Amino acid sequence: MTKSPNAPLKQEKGRLQVKVARNAPCVILMEPRLAENMGTTARAMRNCGLSELRLVDPKADWLSEKAIAASSGGAVILEKAKRFDTLEEAIADLQRIYATTARRREMVKPIFTAKGAGPDMRGHAEAGRKMGLLFGREKHGLTSDEIALCDAIIEIPMNPDYSSLNLAQAVLLVSYEWFQAGYEGPQSAMTFNRTSPATKDQVMELFLHLERELVECGFLRDEDKRALMVINIRNMLQRAELTDQEVRTFHGIIKELRYGRRPDRPLRQPGVKPEPAPKPLIQRYKEAKTGS
Amino acid sequence: MTKSPNAPLKQEKGRLQVKVARNAPCVILMEPRLAENMGTTARAMRNCGLSELRLVDPKADWLSEKAIAASSGGAVILEKAKRFDTLEEAIADLQRIYATTARRREMVKPIFTAKGAGPDMRGHAEAGRKMGLLFGREKHGLTSDEIALCDAIIEIPMNPDYSSLNLAQAVLLVSYEWFQAGYEGPQSAMTFNRTSPATKDQVMELFLHLERELVECGFLRDEDKRALMVINIRNMLQRAELTDQEVRTFHGIIKELRYGRRPDRPLRQPGVKPEPAPKPLIQRYKEAKTGS
Repeated sequence: MTKSPNAPLKQEKGRLQVKVARNAPCVILMEPRLAENMGTTARAMRNCGLSELRLVDPKADWLSEKAIAASSGGAVILEKAKRFDTLEEAIADLQRIYATTARRREMVKPIFTAKGAGPDMRGHAEAGRKMGLLFGREKHGLTSDEIALCDAIIEIPMNPDYSSLNLAQAVLLVSYEWFQAGYEGPQSAMTFNRTSPATKDQVMELFLHLERELVECGFLRDEDKRALMVINIRNMLQRAELTDQEVRTFHGIIKELRYGRRPDRPLRQPGVKPEPAPKPLIQRYKEAKTGS
Repeated sequence: MTKSPNAPLKQEKGRLQVKVARNAPCVILMEPRLAENMGTTARAMRNCGLSELRLVDPKADWLSEKAIAASSGGAVILEKAKRFDTLEEAIADLQRIYATTARRREMVKPIFTAKGAGPDMRGHAEAGRKMGLLFGREKHGLTSDEIALCDAIIEIPMNPDYSSLNLAQAVLLVSYEWFQAGYEGPQSAMTFNRTSPATKDQVMELFLHLERELVECGFLRDEDKRALMVINIRNMLQRAELTDQEVRTFHGIIKELRYGRRPDRPLRQPGVKPEPAPKPLIQRYKEAKTGS
């Protein structure tokens, strides 16, 4: 048996972290017609840490083979789904309802984008409110009577040339924004895993090694252009944000490109003394300072 | 024929407005197995203003009946989809590739959440770059070799208990964030449509009308509690953010509740002079000031 989606979200090591979801809203489907849509809705809910599904007068069996197959890991949500005869009964114990609609109504009502609804829902969840996300019929959406029972409208900005979303897609996007509003990590980063960015001493050491060899092999022979070319090469390498391991790899690449086997030379003789390693930059700074 | 999704997005009146999408990324599917997934991918793309689909060695027919049915209004994207033998060929003309992956790799690579990738993609689009969004195989995702050809990774924060997304759902969420990053309107608002919020003069007028009737009918008979009850009632009505039309409706409600038909009284006689309308607040302010 899979773990209950009601369990607080674990913060797995090395994964993007999302704040524990308290008082997650339930999802209410108004007269859904297709078993498959109830299944994919359950899957989208599970993906986003929602667990309670309410069905108002559903026109298909939400525990049919089709529904379960479509739900993938969300079957546990279908098994616990509750059926209601009317919307009034389905929302009776809730305190705040968001209705997702595709078109504007002649109504005076707070309206949120899906993205804007995320923090609003989290705020009400923090305050301990019981919330519901209401989605309309596959073909006809929600009636104005139904929307009048809701506190706010959610509208998802979509390509105006083709804004029609499948029911489960709409559920996914609104649930996704609920989930993202609890995400507290950075929106971008470099994944270093077990390695780490090189220190600037290591990077400058690499620059000096490369530039010395580029002068000696003739690539930087033009002294007038040398300073600008060095700047360009340094910028190119800075942009790579090298790790300490990659700096070591790069030293090896330079050395072997310059002194490794080549078709026009005999193989290096065993016993020949290798190129002395360049002294660490800081040591040379010290030598320059003390004049040693 | 439906309008080409390549056409700049129209900004429809009264709809949430999204910035015209220039240089939208193409979507690249790696060896997709199911025709239906190619169809639902096309639909999600169309919803989010993307139009170019590239298929690397697809294992099913993207123009089959199943695919077209699943694509709904996205069929135009399937019809124009391009097939490639290898990933290298599919990305050859592109300048920046984002790979969507479900699990972390031992790789040093810029990583974005889907939300973080939105503005990054828009920035590169503004600079005229040709971009691709790469999605892996339904079962096995992408290999490390394939990811090494990409510039950045997109990871979608999901319920760690169940983070497995269907291929088209992953395409939808990344495409959605591309689209939302061009959305420039407010994330929440009140939809007033053809009416508008009442002026404070209208609201204060309503307060005075209601409070006068509440004193006269006996509800506010306790003078000690009156001030606090008035504050509470005023706060309740302020929260409703009434429109000018609703203020007029409310005046009528008060009047009819107070003086309308009731079972213990005879019907109002025709010709009886109606209750005089309260003077506008500003007029009374003036009268109080001038002592008239």
